[in-house]
Amino acid sequence: MFGTILEDAVTGVKGAVAAILMGFDGIPVDTFQVANSEEDIETIGMEFSVLLKEVKKAAEALETGLATEMSVQTDAMSIVLRIISDEYFLAIAIRNNGNLGKARYLLRIAAPKINEALTE
Amino acid sequence: MFGTILEDAVTGVKGAVAAILMGFDGIPVDTFQVANSEEDIETIGMEFSVLLKEVKKAAEALETGLATEMSVQTDAMSIVLRIISDEYFLAIAIRNNGNLGKARYLLRIAAPKINEALTE
Repeated sequence: MFGTILEDAVTGVKGAVAAILMGFDGIPVDTFQVANSEEDIETIGMEFSVLLKEVKKAAEALETGLATEMSVQTDAMSIVLRIISDEYFLAIAIRNNGNLGKARYLLRIAAPKINEALTE
Repeated sequence: MFGTILEDAVTGVKGAVAAILMGFDGIPVDTFQVANSEEDIETIGMEFSVLLKEVKKAAEALETGLATEMSVQTDAMSIVLRIISDEYFLAIAIRNNGNLGKARYLLRIAAPKINEALTE
């Protein structure tokens, strides 16, 4: 179930190589990775889970509304992280020729579906 | 000089309300804010300067290339942060009906101009 949603997100975005559904405790629920990709999406997810928690706190401190998403660009790749609930988030890794806007869109659409499945 | 670049970025993006050029030490160099906006861009910049430093470290740890940009979405607004150098970054605050893609583009264009002016 989750694997299909992650696969749809990755295959639907030009340049996307991997996606993960992870708890804020850094424990992965499910992942999808394209063949021949070297990106370690579990380590990426774990590293950014800590930062995403800090972003949630910063948004609360600044009273700018609840944080929903964070994205990071580097020389080589983009990572989009979408908060699903207090416990879970989605992350997708995209090589830098990829379509960041579509990744954001697909994660936004996927988040409520996954949240529903998680709480069933 | 910096004020004009910040003003051009804010007025060029639908929904943008404020921009700041800030040191990673949290000390502002220059700001531009539209009239009647309540967002406290200095506090936003200070809060996210800490996170942006963590993002730089995470990108190094993950060997995903140098971090160049971070963006955060909340229920009410988007914040785009663009790294200029080891010492400085730009941030722009956009209300959520605004054009995030154009903000990212304008900060990417502004960053080398500001870096040049800072190092003159």
